[in-house]
Amino acid sequence: MTRTEPARGMRDFLPEDIRRREYAIGTIRRVYERYGFEPLETPAVENLETLMGKYGEEGNQLIFKILKRGEHEASGQADLALRYDLTVPLARVVAQYQSKLPRLFKRYQIQPVWRADRPARGRFREFYQCDVDALGSTSPVVEAEVCAALSDALIELGFADFTIRINHRQLLAAILNVAGIPEPLHGTALVAVDKLDKIGREGVKSEMTARGIEGEAAGKLLDVFEFLANEQLGSRSVLLEDDHAGLAALENLAAILSHAEGTSAGRRFRFDPSLARGLSYYTGAIMEINVPDLAGSLGGGGRYDNLVGMFLGRSVPACGFSLGLERILVVMGERGMFPANLPTSPADVMMSVFDAADAPHALRVAALLRRTGLRVLVYPDADKIGKQIKYADSLGIPFVAILGSNEIAAGTVTVKNLAAQTQTTYDQAAAGGAILEGLRQRG
Amino acid sequence: MTRTEPARGMRDFLPEDIRRREYAIGTIRRVYERYGFEPLETPAVENLETLMGKYGEEGNQLIFKILKRGEHEASGQADLALRYDLTVPLARVVAQYQSKLPRLFKRYQIQPVWRADRPARGRFREFYQCDVDALGSTSPVVEAEVCAALSDALIELGFADFTIRINHRQLLAAILNVAGIPEPLHGTALVAVDKLDKIGREGVKSEMTARGIEGEAAGKLLDVFEFLANEQLGSRSVLLEDDHAGLAALENLAAILSHAEGTSAGRRFRFDPSLARGLSYYTGAIMEINVPDLAGSLGGGGRYDNLVGMFLGRSVPACGFSLGLERILVVMGERGMFPANLPTSPADVMMSVFDAADAPHALRVAALLRRTGLRVLVYPDADKIGKQIKYADSLGIPFVAILGSNEIAAGTVTVKNLAAQTQTTYDQAAAGGAILEGLRQRG
Repeated sequence: MTRTEPARGMRDFLPEDIRRREYAIGTIRRVYERYGFEPLETPAVENLETLMGKYGEEGNQLIFKILKRGEHEASGQADLALRYDLTVPLARVVAQYQSKLPRLFKRYQIQPVWRADRPARGRFREFYQCDVDALGSTSPVVEAEVCAALSDALIELGFADFTIRINHRQLLAAILNVAGIPEPLHGTALVAVDKLDKIGREGVKSEMTARGIEGEAAGKLLDVFEFLANEQLGSRSVLLEDDHAGLAALENLAAILSHAEGTSAGRRFRFDPSLARGLSYYTGAIMEINVPDLAGSLGGGGRYDNLVGMFLGRSVPACGFSLGLERILVVMGERGMFPANLPTSPADVMMSVFDAADAPHALRVAALLRRTGLRVLVYPDADKIGKQIKYADSLGIPFVAILGSNEIAAGTVTVKNLAAQTQTTYDQAAAGGAILEGLRQRG
Repeated sequence: MTRTEPARGMRDFLPEDIRRREYAIGTIRRVYERYGFEPLETPAVENLETLMGKYGEEGNQLIFKILKRGEHEASGQADLALRYDLTVPLARVVAQYQSKLPRLFKRYQIQPVWRADRPARGRFREFYQCDVDALGSTSPVVEAEVCAALSDALIELGFADFTIRINHRQLLAAILNVAGIPEPLHGTALVAVDKLDKIGREGVKSEMTARGIEGEAAGKLLDVFEFLANEQLGSRSVLLEDDHAGLAALENLAAILSHAEGTSAGRRFRFDPSLARGLSYYTGAIMEINVPDLAGSLGGGGRYDNLVGMFLGRSVPACGFSLGLERILVVMGERGMFPANLPTSPADVMMSVFDAADAPHALRVAALLRRTGLRVLVYPDADKIGKQIKYADSLGIPFVAILGSNEIAAGTVTVKNLAAQTQTTYDQAAAGGAILEGLRQRG
């Protein structure tokens, strides 16, 4: 006998789970479309070379690789892989279909991605990302619109207490320069700094020194972050001396904030100079969304002006954000944020027959009822009527339609309202309307 | 530079593709729900052992296997695999969550599956299946309801000319016995017979003899099929002599047909004694849906009473059907069956500004418009207004909202109707309503 659990870190979604997921996905999608983002889907499986080298060293190790097939299977080599995020496939798509896509391409994509990460609370090996990305413009309008879209989506889901942490990769580079960390070690330092929330100041410092950054520079870097966190955005420029890219980054951040002022994202921003984001492809503003009762983030994103160039040979400016569906659902579940009126039963009415020989009539009447839009379950077996009704009740199906020989002869059907414990006999053609009316009265 | 095509046999779906796919999926789903099927989703990745040995020898070879990770990667071994269909994962789920699922569990599942098949027209390596399955009853009501659901779905999509070919695995076994094919070779013979449509009588015969079936038995089998295809269902029983399982199969088929009479599937059935279905897990009635202008089928299914038992240790009766989304879409595209009113533009209105400094106002007014439900694109760059309007027009966006310094000072916005070539200035708070009214008038 084969094991029956899903594979490690993977999940099955039963009907109740799906209804909650679809409620959240539907809400997010509707908001994304209001911003002019268009739907895109890419295959789960990419050529291995498409993914390798795009996520940094830690990312590479988490990619699920697919074995070659047929006679090549024995080689033990991989040529394909499961997508790790939705951003690298987007960059490939933009390079491939350039001429078919609008010059300023805005797309959303809500699909699963796979990472061979260690499973933990809210962290799975298959999980959905809800991405928006806008390509073709370097304007801060793009960052502001992306943040406004996320903010609207979270508000529509009922989140009132999120903040959008924002920082800038060029500003980080300037700060690393000020701290005296040599450029080849910037990436290493950022990966460590990104964990400040999780492993604290001492943890970050020891990770940096373990990876070849001098203790003094590491300490200075952490001091600079502490100083910056307590200052206003304007006064921070004194620190940057004449690092032009750093100063331009500060201006860019100020522009994004002022553009977003009239949107729902306006009051959500919190400048966080130590925010680094793990992925290596970011080049400009970077963002992360947090709520107080979750250690990790609800999502993150930023500008990545060079990624498309890795596929296209010339760079295309781009900025995007990925909401993590699984964490949103975890918090919504814990806080009881799902609407009370999500469907819970598989059907509005169940068709029953007294006699197995009458089942064809049950199917015919079910077809009539379905034509009115009702969801109808046909009880397949000739069990006693009491057992059939109990079954409908146990599933929360509000009405049972019963066909006996009298009803069949008369062209009628008896409809039982299980909650009200009433029953009425209708012409078969009129029963659907009566049940719909009964559903309306129940609310 | 990395290649930009999707991996072999895989596809990217651009916005226009997605809208067509979502139209078809939405229609199918709505019909499935009307039959009381509930949504279920399972992970793309299963333990390798879950899939191996469930699809027959040819199926096994088409499974995409995932390399072990970390220190085990070098072993070249696989421990996981991409799901090959939605039926085996369902059987695993039913075994795993028994106590949480209704006794008569009906579920639909619309998700991609992966097969390392040779790509061809309408055949891809990643493709969506739209499955319905009903578990827990051996009643012919189940087969009839499943066929009615598929039939309704196809009719709702606009198909008028499909047939449901039906046969029975026990009847096939009886026929194989009559032809003198020994039981251990039944599976082999069925795999060959299943290709009768594709490779013809001689092709099937030579495949059978190549696989160890005597030429005489192979010939007799094909003769029996020919004879049966030209007889009425009732008279066929003479052939079966006293093969009880075969006679019971004939009765079961007759019951399914009579149960389905009052449904939309009623007149669609065509008994096809040579229909075999490739997969090894079927035990009872088997079905396939065809249209005249497609060589393969639009979908197939049947009863598989022993599959859940491979996971659970005791058998649970089950019957299901899988519609192939990709083929449905191919035929719908060729026949022009998609509705004319699927959205084609990314937005209802585009916000423009004369001056980059005014962009924050554009975002604020966009937020106002979105609150009315409008889909609003904000043009991010400070290009000349003429260029901006041309861009909106090229995307089929019907309205452009323009903010100049006068409008900003007055709290107004000028709305251009691109088709009518008219423009009107509104209070910013009133513009959304006016644009919605304009959209309604365009139909």
